[in-house]
Amino acid sequence: SAGPGCLPDVVLEEARENILDLNGTGIGILEHSHRGKTFMDVLEDTEARIRRVLSIPTDYSVLMLQGGATMQFAMVPLNLRGAGETADYFVTGLWAQKAAKEAALLGNMHVAASSEDRNFSYIPKQYNYSEKPAYVHYTSNNTVFGIQQREEPEIPVNSTLVCDASSDICSRPIDVSKYGLIYAGAQKNMGSAGVTIVIVRKDLLERAPKNLPLMMQYRVHAKDGSMHNTPPTFAIYLVGLVMKWVENQGGVDHFAKATPHKSGILYNFLDQSKLFRGLADVDSRSHMNVTFKTMNEEQDDKFCKEATAAGFDGLKGHRSAGGMRASVYNAFPVAGVEQLVQFMKEFERKNS
Amino acid sequence: SAGPGCLPDVVLEEARENILDLNGTGIGILEHSHRGKTFMDVLEDTEARIRRVLSIPTDYSVLMLQGGATMQFAMVPLNLRGAGETADYFVTGLWAQKAAKEAALLGNMHVAASSEDRNFSYIPKQYNYSEKPAYVHYTSNNTVFGIQQREEPEIPVNSTLVCDASSDICSRPIDVSKYGLIYAGAQKNMGSAGVTIVIVRKDLLERAPKNLPLMMQYRVHAKDGSMHNTPPTFAIYLVGLVMKWVENQGGVDHFAKATPHKSGILYNFLDQSKLFRGLADVDSRSHMNVTFKTMNEEQDDKFCKEATAAGFDGLKGHRSAGGMRASVYNAFPVAGVEQLVQFMKEFERKNS
Repeated sequence: SAGPGCLPDVVLEEARENILDLNGTGIGILEHSHRGKTFMDVLEDTEARIRRVLSIPTDYSVLMLQGGATMQFAMVPLNLRGAGETADYFVTGLWAQKAAKEAALLGNMHVAASSEDRNFSYIPKQYNYSEKPAYVHYTSNNTVFGIQQREEPEIPVNSTLVCDASSDICSRPIDVSKYGLIYAGAQKNMGSAGVTIVIVRKDLLERAPKNLPLMMQYRVHAKDGSMHNTPPTFAIYLVGLVMKWVENQGGVDHFAKATPHKSGILYNFLDQSKLFRGLADVDSRSHMNVTFKTMNEEQDDKFCKEATAAGFDGLKGHRSAGGMRASVYNAFPVAGVEQLVQFMKEFERKNS
Repeated sequence: SAGPGCLPDVVLEEARENILDLNGTGIGILEHSHRGKTFMDVLEDTEARIRRVLSIPTDYSVLMLQGGATMQFAMVPLNLRGAGETADYFVTGLWAQKAAKEAALLGNMHVAASSEDRNFSYIPKQYNYSEKPAYVHYTSNNTVFGIQQREEPEIPVNSTLVCDASSDICSRPIDVSKYGLIYAGAQKNMGSAGVTIVIVRKDLLERAPKNLPLMMQYRVHAKDGSMHNTPPTFAIYLVGLVMKWVENQGGVDHFAKATPHKSGILYNFLDQSKLFRGLADVDSRSHMNVTFKTMNEEQDDKFCKEATAAGFDGLKGHRSAGGMRASVYNAFPVAGVEQLVQFMKEFERKNS
């Protein structure tokens, strides 16, 4: 699925064991007080693992918040854009568009680049910044159309780079020091729906007006160590388990190799297929979401139906993109990709 | 624990089974797409159960949101208080105080009643409303000091009653039609941390300005059926399981009897004890959180230490109330209360 995505078996099994009794405490993870030592240890361990996995410098806060990336669409401009200032956005997909619209609802937004002209099938190479953007926001991976911006855009001096990394975080190393703020809903590569990771440079915490709702202020969450109110304890616990799994696999360096290998199996097949074709420009292809089509909608429907019957769930593309989408996040096994390609080959043979 | 509280064993066991495979789909509850039929059925079933359990009229929306009651502290005034209007608050505990402070941060707030003078040990019987309050907000159960306001306050004509029912929802019938809005973090009587239930009369949905962040607008969540963004799928699923359990126990009518019986065992003991004493005025006592003290702090500490060693976890009172607190939410077994009283009797015998 495009998200919530699949989770590693070892994570599911450990979570399953701890539903009734967390680490021998006699109390399940869902029932532990968030102020008790047991959960505080979970929270601390989870933050430490996130910091290790993503090599986060000490001058950044790591926050675990609620409301998904969609809440960040509002919190970013409310916290980082001063009165009268403009924020610049890359519009490279459905979620990027939503982020830009929210920023426009709440103040001055400028579109620095867009690939809407060709239905978000490519990452724009030309940018057109506003005079003095408070920050520049881009979406590193576009789950709906299947394009990925793996290289940070160059931004004007004195501006701040902000990234929605929801759908490719932990799939490759990133140089956090290039960013002012990175956020990611956990439900693709970091855990389950219900928690959002925000990595924010500490000097930015004080930018927001103090009459914002407390829950919308990064400074409040940073000061209270993600415990301003009752945090989503189970979702945080799961992020910790997934981070442990990532570390055991060899960290993001492992996925930086494993991920292009996995998506490559699909792209290689698409490039030689006479029935299927990829939707994204070759140089913009996502390693997380591989989008493709057959010759026509009718055949797409037939494919989705037969694929579902054969046990390949969640392949139907997003309604705004059409076609199909294979989401191959970190936890998705390479064997699953190989089986899908086999199935596609068979479908092509029968339908050519 | 005062919350996240304990969950029924049958709920934990069913959740445990569905972590690896939800209802034979071959995919665990954490991994299902929120847009897939399987999860949509869970969402629909959960809402239907909440409506049945709480007898919610059809002219009310039921929303399942993120951010806890603390986010509602901001959303309520932002959505229901017009420009220049005043909202009235009952300040009857720590959380009521936080709600009032947030309302004051964001606009005009008036304290209609307070029991701060005697450390929140009673429910005030006198109210002093502002001239034309946009709404009147009260907290039906105060978890920290252990007082409960089981009867709705009378409010001025044309005002709207709003209730934070986080810690006693589903413990007794309420007449929803008396309210404009009721909200409740799920982690006490409805499920786990990470989801908040909001019950709002539909005519109130359109009150808010349209330039609020989309995630802060009740109208947006109502229009999108709690699916404006990726919802906290597992937390919603758990609410459904807990509501099924509540229905199987006989609904809120069952708990309306079971709950005073359970807290009554503790209060009866406290009333005749020579060592322990209850903190709340008798007519304001909570059926959810029973607060008490011994003769002095040193003895309180000794009691907490020995209780923990004997397997009674989470009894230490909140730092602002001191003493002890036994939280006896719906899922807490009566046998647990009886064992605690036995333990307290024994402690009294040894320490008198």
